[in-house]
Amino acid sequence: MTDVTLPFEQLRSFALTVFAKIGCSPEDAALATNVLLSADLRGIDSHGLARLSGYVRLWEAKRINTQANVKVVYETPSTAVVDGDSGLGLVVAPKAMQIAIEKAKVAGTGWVSVKNSNHFGIAGYHAMMALQHDMIGMAMTNASPLVAPTFSTERLLGTNPIAVAVPAKEQPAFVADLATTTAANGKLEILQRKNKTAPTGWIQDKDGNTSTNPHELKDGGALIPLGSDYEHGSHKGYALGSVVDIFSAVLSGANYGPWVPPFVAFLQPPADPVGEGIGHFFGAMRVDAFRPAEEFKTHMDKWITRFRSAKTVEGKDRVLIPGDPEREMEKIRLTSGIPLNAKVVEDLTELGKKFGVNF
Amino acid sequence: MTDVTLPFEQLRSFALTVFAKIGCSPEDAALATNVLLSADLRGIDSHGLARLSGYVRLWEAKRINTQANVKVVYETPSTAVVDGDSGLGLVVAPKAMQIAIEKAKVAGTGWVSVKNSNHFGIAGYHAMMALQHDMIGMAMTNASPLVAPTFSTERLLGTNPIAVAVPAKEQPAFVADLATTTAANGKLEILQRKNKTAPTGWIQDKDGNTSTNPHELKDGGALIPLGSDYEHGSHKGYALGSVVDIFSAVLSGANYGPWVPPFVAFLQPPADPVGEGIGHFFGAMRVDAFRPAEEFKTHMDKWITRFRSAKTVEGKDRVLIPGDPEREMEKIRLTSGIPLNAKVVEDLTELGKKFGVNF
Repeated sequence: MTDVTLPFEQLRSFALTVFAKIGCSPEDAALATNVLLSADLRGIDSHGLARLSGYVRLWEAKRINTQANVKVVYETPSTAVVDGDSGLGLVVAPKAMQIAIEKAKVAGTGWVSVKNSNHFGIAGYHAMMALQHDMIGMAMTNASPLVAPTFSTERLLGTNPIAVAVPAKEQPAFVADLATTTAANGKLEILQRKNKTAPTGWIQDKDGNTSTNPHELKDGGALIPLGSDYEHGSHKGYALGSVVDIFSAVLSGANYGPWVPPFVAFLQPPADPVGEGIGHFFGAMRVDAFRPAEEFKTHMDKWITRFRSAKTVEGKDRVLIPGDPEREMEKIRLTSGIPLNAKVVEDLTELGKKFGVNF
Repeated sequence: MTDVTLPFEQLRSFALTVFAKIGCSPEDAALATNVLLSADLRGIDSHGLARLSGYVRLWEAKRINTQANVKVVYETPSTAVVDGDSGLGLVVAPKAMQIAIEKAKVAGTGWVSVKNSNHFGIAGYHAMMALQHDMIGMAMTNASPLVAPTFSTERLLGTNPIAVAVPAKEQPAFVADLATTTAANGKLEILQRKNKTAPTGWIQDKDGNTSTNPHELKDGGALIPLGSDYEHGSHKGYALGSVVDIFSAVLSGANYGPWVPPFVAFLQPPADPVGEGIGHFFGAMRVDAFRPAEEFKTHMDKWITRFRSAKTVEGKDRVLIPGDPEREMEKIRLTSGIPLNAKVVEDLTELGKKFGVNF
């Protein structure tokens, strides 16, 4: 197999079929496909089709319920806890975010913590659902423990991302979507495939020394929280990742810290769970719960244009606004297609065979 | 003057008198003193008494109104915008946080964005107000522009801190309080006083090159967002600082980005403001808006004890929980007194003379 670039619609259709084959309703298959492909379009290749066979393996291991009944189990005017019923995170998450949006319509803001879910794709997708309602959207999730707290050699946190989407008027929305680690796991996977070394400050070995070996996690190493080391604020990245874990799982009743079940189906979830599945947290804030929406969006335009036109360091032609690179990538890939790594192509071809679908 | 260590009560009484002398009501003077001294107790010396003369100079420059009428100017069931009426941030902030707490009692959560305020002391104090109500508290603020976005040479953001306080049961609360820069400005001030160099990755010079000179900001340099450089995620620190700026000021109608008025009275605020004063953002979430409070707090205890007992790297005897160092410092300083740098003693002695109070 070699690297190829394929049209969005062809990949979309393939994913739709696979999700239907594992038992998703047409509505849920469409939802899961939209979330998954949005990662490929936006250039976050690690969270797109490259993960499709992983979801299927979790379904085969009976750890994903494709006919989940996603429901509110606890609520107040501005909050809810959602039980994902072991569903695909790709389906549970947009449904939970929609509940946050509905709450915000009435109460000004809506906050939903989710238990009993699975990996939800890219956080940015869910946060951006708020934009069309003139709301600020937030999404976070905990994840398989790969990250060591500052001063520790144990992996107790996931890469626990935070996404915040803010609507503007003429300008495109501000969309921050960041792992609370120095480097996202996806960046490490790229180095592993290319057999390259990692910069110092991304990874530590089993004793907690910084390492440049991207395979270090197989030997008991860990990812390092945003900041790289204590002197450069890794305790801040650790604190942020912890907040994500607490909001996503201690609030909802999901597993937290080292008890979060692994994404890979070949590893068993911990035998002594402290909750159900993995956890997410979503927020929606109506901007007109604070000031008239037009006024807010006009000032966001001013914020964005001021930052984008800031004086740059030599060699850079502009200052980026969070969301700029992904939006530009999406525009290109929608028309020029989505590049897939040879290993992913092989994986998807196998997956197709399993279900009698041509990739 | 030399460094001295003075009892908490003596310093408290001095600050109370000074706030009364500049026109605060007894209630407001007590509030401002509690917030200010809490920084000294918790070991965040840059935000405590060291700043008292700075607040007084702002009052002398007629930029602080010590008889401010702090009021809600816009609201929904779960949100409010508060106009600080140019008041002391040390007074405006706890009043606004109290409004967030009252909202949360009814709606499950409360979110308050504040305009027309001034520097509010340590973010952690305000977030921690939620704890006694079994609520999660959040506090953030924008601040004088000292930080350059990734790839920029311009100072467009403040050190924009985020604080999150989470109640536990038997364990002390989780309290994260972090500047969204690699190093807080206070750490830089310590290096300046001691004439020491800074680690690389904290500061850049006027052209955007990393610098170890702690005086670099006087020559057009800037603080660097959490992450230190692009390869280590400074664009994430930039995104987080931006979110703080937007929540604090674009939502409320305060000044944002480079328009935030400087803390020091000898610098004039920008002549073309885009809003009123500086902005803050507060949140309160009732934990029982998600699950029964006892259940939540029992799991927080489990979270905290698991992380605190994690295996450590060589040379460290334990993994810290956010809030541990500050809480331990507070315990020590309450009994053993608060150490003050000679320059701060000189400053406070001068301040005392101005108002006919013995320091």
